[in-house]
Amino acid sequence: MASLRTLYAADGNPPELRTNMNVDFVINYKISSDALVEAEAGFTQLIEALTKAGLASEVRRGVDHTSVLVFVKVASEKYLKSRIYRERVQDWLYGVRIKTPEKDVDKIFEEDPIVDAERLRLVYLLLTSPKNEGGAGITPETGQWKYVESIFLCTIMLSTGNGSSSGAFGEKVAFYFAFLQSYFSFLVFPAAFGFASWLILGQYSWLYALVNSLWSVVFFEYWKKKEQDLAVQWGVRGVSRIQLPRTEFQWDHEAADPMTGEAVKVYSAKKRLQTQLLQVPFAFVCLLILGALYLFCFSVEIFIGEIYNGPLKSYLTFLPTIILTGLVPTLSTILGNLAERLTEAENYETHDAHEAALTQKIFVVNFITSYTPLFLSAFVYMPFGNLLVPYLDVFKVTAEKISSSEKLTTQSFQINPDRLRTQIIYFTVTAQIVNFALEAVAPIVKRKVFKKVKEVQTEFAHKNEKGDVVPADAPEEAAFLARVRNEAELDVYDVATDYREMVVQFGYLSLFSAIWPLAPVSFLINNWVELRSDAMKIAISSQRPIPWRADSIGPWLNALGFLSWFGSLISSAIVFMFSGDSNGPRGEPSSISAWALLLTVLCSEHLYLAVQFAVRYGLKQMHSPGLHKERAERYQMRKNILAETLDNAVETKPLPDIPTGEKITRAALEEEARQASLRGHGTPEEAFWQRQQGMDETITIGRSLISKMAAANKTAKA
Amino acid sequence: MASLRTLYAADGNPPELRTNMNVDFVINYKISSDALVEAEAGFTQLIEALTKAGLASEVRRGVDHTSVLVFVKVASEKYLKSRIYRERVQDWLYGVRIKTPEKDVDKIFEEDPIVDAERLRLVYLLLTSPKNEGGAGITPETGQWKYVESIFLCTIMLSTGNGSSSGAFGEKVAFYFAFLQSYFSFLVFPAAFGFASWLILGQYSWLYALVNSLWSVVFFEYWKKKEQDLAVQWGVRGVSRIQLPRTEFQWDHEAADPMTGEAVKVYSAKKRLQTQLLQVPFAFVCLLILGALYLFCFSVEIFIGEIYNGPLKSYLTFLPTIILTGLVPTLSTILGNLAERLTEAENYETHDAHEAALTQKIFVVNFITSYTPLFLSAFVYMPFGNLLVPYLDVFKVTAEKISSSEKLTTQSFQINPDRLRTQIIYFTVTAQIVNFALEAVAPIVKRKVFKKVKEVQTEFAHKNEKGDVVPADAPEEAAFLARVRNEAELDVYDVATDYREMVVQFGYLSLFSAIWPLAPVSFLINNWVELRSDAMKIAISSQRPIPWRADSIGPWLNALGFLSWFGSLISSAIVFMFSGDSNGPRGEPSSISAWALLLTVLCSEHLYLAVQFAVRYGLKQMHSPGLHKERAERYQMRKNILAETLDNAVETKPLPDIPTGEKITRAALEEEARQASLRGHGTPEEAFWQRQQGMDETITIGRSLISKMAAANKTAKA
Repeated sequence: MASLRTLYAADGNPPELRTNMNVDFVINYKISSDALVEAEAGFTQLIEALTKAGLASEVRRGVDHTSVLVFVKVASEKYLKSRIYRERVQDWLYGVRIKTPEKDVDKIFEEDPIVDAERLRLVYLLLTSPKNEGGAGITPETGQWKYVESIFLCTIMLSTGNGSSSGAFGEKVAFYFAFLQSYFSFLVFPAAFGFASWLILGQYSWLYALVNSLWSVVFFEYWKKKEQDLAVQWGVRGVSRIQLPRTEFQWDHEAADPMTGEAVKVYSAKKRLQTQLLQVPFAFVCLLILGALYLFCFSVEIFIGEIYNGPLKSYLTFLPTIILTGLVPTLSTILGNLAERLTEAENYETHDAHEAALTQKIFVVNFITSYTPLFLSAFVYMPFGNLLVPYLDVFKVTAEKISSSEKLTTQSFQINPDRLRTQIIYFTVTAQIVNFALEAVAPIVKRKVFKKVKEVQTEFAHKNEKGDVVPADAPEEAAFLARVRNEAELDVYDVATDYREMVVQFGYLSLFSAIWPLAPVSFLINNWVELRSDAMKIAISSQRPIPWRADSIGPWLNALGFLSWFGSLISSAIVFMFSGDSNGPRGEPSSISAWALLLTVLCSEHLYLAVQFAVRYGLKQMHSPGLHKERAERYQMRKNILAETLDNAVETKPLPDIPTGEKITRAALEEEARQASLRGHGTPEEAFWQRQQGMDETITIGRSLISKMAAANKTAKA
Repeated sequence: MASLRTLYAADGNPPELRTNMNVDFVINYKISSDALVEAEAGFTQLIEALTKAGLASEVRRGVDHTSVLVFVKVASEKYLKSRIYRERVQDWLYGVRIKTPEKDVDKIFEEDPIVDAERLRLVYLLLTSPKNEGGAGITPETGQWKYVESIFLCTIMLSTGNGSSSGAFGEKVAFYFAFLQSYFSFLVFPAAFGFASWLILGQYSWLYALVNSLWSVVFFEYWKKKEQDLAVQWGVRGVSRIQLPRTEFQWDHEAADPMTGEAVKVYSAKKRLQTQLLQVPFAFVCLLILGALYLFCFSVEIFIGEIYNGPLKSYLTFLPTIILTGLVPTLSTILGNLAERLTEAENYETHDAHEAALTQKIFVVNFITSYTPLFLSAFVYMPFGNLLVPYLDVFKVTAEKISSSEKLTTQSFQINPDRLRTQIIYFTVTAQIVNFALEAVAPIVKRKVFKKVKEVQTEFAHKNEKGDVVPADAPEEAAFLARVRNEAELDVYDVATDYREMVVQFGYLSLFSAIWPLAPVSFLINNWVELRSDAMKIAISSQRPIPWRADSIGPWLNALGFLSWFGSLISSAIVFMFSGDSNGPRGEPSSISAWALLLTVLCSEHLYLAVQFAVRYGLKQMHSPGLHKERAERYQMRKNILAETLDNAVETKPLPDIPTGEKITRAALEEEARQASLRGHGTPEEAFWQRQQGMDETITIGRSLISKMAAANKTAKA
């Protein structure tokens, strides 16, 4: 993220970047010439809702003639402060903010001024949260707000940023970049070791697989610790405990909470469970569709590449690649949308629960699309190829029927020992380059083309009119408005896409890199570019993301843990099966001894678990600056409160004066007797505790008891 | 624990049970007739230390002539209240107590009176915590306090108990009984199923092993949840966060904490790690010694029972049992002491860390002593017996040498298919009965005998003297003092011993019960007795335990989890190996297909893990009254604080009045121009937000923009 600053600086700070006009958010409001009355009424409702939520608004011409832009900020500084104060108190109550909030509002904001991200988060909540919670309740593109196309932020100003990467784009995005940076640094080791392995040990090396697996444990456990440290450092630890309600949540009925008496929105857990169970058929459908597709292409590929020897072979070779390249992204998108709709139907109450459920499904889809080809090659084609090829005759018959004129020549089938390596090289090198092109280059090209088209259209429209119907922008705003209109057209930055890419890559590394030890080298190079292109993407080619807080990378952590563990099984199985000789697999399935394979996998897994246990224990013993800081702050807070409360409540030194006791004199005994008679001897309990008055009496009597009894013992012994 | 009340009631409430004389603790101070001066000086120091710590003391004659008893209570009610108030504020700061403590001390104790357990815990801390922390710093039987034999509590009074079992003996003990009760209830299911299996399926049943393993998952996960609920119900959730420093902790040096500036006691982590590493050789030594012993007895047993046919066979058969019965308990005790000393040397700072480390070692020792014989039988004797027996010739030769006169007759070796079952019956029935006898009956007998001996001794001593040298007890105290002298002789109740027994039993159930499905029936019966005998033990035949708090069963939970997981491996392996035919094992090792065994174990383990995951998820969805209550209380607390703070700090309705805007009239425009010129046009930002003043202007201008642009679009399209 350090590069962001230089990115902006390189722009030479042109006038439209110099100010945001104090605008917090921009609403892009679509104009429909077919339903003009409805659009106008909707606009009125929008401005009214904003005003009621305490927001000020200004309207300007939008992009071309198809929209107007509504600029939003908080109407009164006082209202902003009171809301932010409320947020900070809530943070304190949930343990996110450790320092007890001052009761004097002005003093608070002197000590801890409102930062950009805090304000923007609050305004976004005012825009989107339901009306009964004091918000405007705007849900873009749905229901009442169907003409609201988007709500977005103006790109960040250098002057307003507080300098830290976590502040500018929110901790949620900052966590992605911190993760990517850590992952990149950690990759140096397997890259170096992988390169050395490739030179010395060759492919399918036991040592490489072992080291790689141990590395993945260390990285995973390290990151879990690092994550906590960062959360403390950024002041967001425990922020996931504060759950944001989803405005889209549909409840069955409202009920009074039996304990608190608060009205709570209830959605039947049974209904949700029923919807959740749809995940099982969903996963099966994914597996079936993608599996069938891969199997089909795979068979065609084998048939054409290694058996078929007829006409057009050089063209037909590309057939499976064309089918896959055309269908897989389409299918992935369809399944991704299906996952989104399924999660929507599961109807979660909070944003985090919704996101976790969606991430899980997206992970399943990606797991299947990414790794199925390699699984098929490693566990079906290589060991059972010779047994399966006869079934490919169906293609032969089809091919013969189509080209019935001449006889097909076929060559005898030979398992291609390099197939796995070719595939892994494709996925770790070629696919990464293609992906980079799609992700970083394509949007820029697309936007340039679209812009050109729009310009031509607008020009055409202008020609048809006599002068512009809409008043021109004021000169001092023109540059700013032009920039905002540009930004309105940009894509929304979705950090999940970037996470997904890295998690899938981690999977290749953990599961399959033993096939080709240069894979981590390729990943290292790719991630060097990725770090920069992602920073570029977020800064320039996307709308600025809403600076959400987060205290971890969330559900992706589980995905990483799963891949790391699964890698211990798969990589050991692959190495065992193929490490025999470098020319090909160990042989026919019968010659691979099943029990040895199972024993290998079993040992590998348990070794993995044992190492994980040890690493976890070791890291726990290590000094953690973040947790240490948090503990120290908490301790200080406790000490302050304790001191304050105790000062108010009880004297600090209530220890009674030590009674020195009196010498047992006749006068004292008489006095005692008098006291006792006055008290009427009291209860047996009182009498018990009055027998020896004061420390000295107890000591005297005790010593005399001791010496008498010791003497008696001595006599008894003698 | 319900039986405790009836137990006491059955006593008919004799006079010595009617009052505790307000005594909190009793110190048993030994008298040494050989070092009389030292003993007397020590006594003086003791009383002075007590007084300085704010405690009142009374001294009385002790047991016979060998000790004096020092009775202790808090000297001043005010001091007690201030200390307890401090504890409660600390509880609140650590999140254990949810209600914010009142600032008015008297009001607090009206609402929440001091309970017995609270006071006793506090007094115990005053007695034992270091002097610089306001305590008396007494460490029985060590250093300065070597004549302090013990510090104990008088048994509980019905009148002072607050009725709940958690209150009377502390939550630490209450958790044991709650665990035992839950475990007992859960055992009903495997007992019933086991009985049915025994009737219908016979031994080594797949179905039984599967159901048993699933049951153990459900029980374990259920208990984890139950534990939390109980902790909330008893108001001790999170209490483990408040760590009690160990008085025995030895520090290298004091250093200032870099963050808080507090002086902290530092012990080198490296030194501790070095000591901790001794655990590895310790475990090996345990395994070696006990393993060798078992192997030796095992071989002797096989040799005598199944090969040897010579003279004295009927006597020699008992030889291994005699060796084991004699040596194993001794060895266990020695290893237990070693474990204690090792933990002592690891020098932990807090009680919990010390206890966790000790528990772990004790578990290892018990694991080895309890399960090694069965492991040997199942995985060495049964599969490899025929191969190993020839090595037993060494015994034959020895035996022949000893009884050189006549020729030994030997019978040919046959693996005894019932051996495993005989063993498991021994461990689940015979050993439990023996254990019960040792645990419940022996101490009573022992005490009776000891008492008789002492009485005779005292009588003898009296005869040698002319009358008693020590004044007799006051009549109103005599009954009470007699009772306390009796209690001084009782054993200390150690809940760890009882936990250990149950955890070992759970291990037999989880690992080996597939051998003999009646095992859970035997455990059910045993635990019915155990529940009662443990209650009896704690109430009558032991000193009352100090009512420590706890929020879980602590380190034993990990032991249970480990056994449950390990059971999925071992029981599946056993069933696989022996389920072939009911007459014996599947055959020679070669005939057991190794890969099938491994596959079985692998599948069983992963099935176990998957079920665990599902059960965990399912239980998480279920309603938990405890957690619900806690959440509700926390919510209420937050709401109160929020309301209070916000009331003080900012007005609750700071939303500005909605400006209605003015009609755009000539007058208004002129006024605006005047205002602008007065302000000197301001910054571009100000100008931007002043273009549309008020909601109505924004709406008017927006609507006009929309209709103009829509019209333009229509023309363009046409």
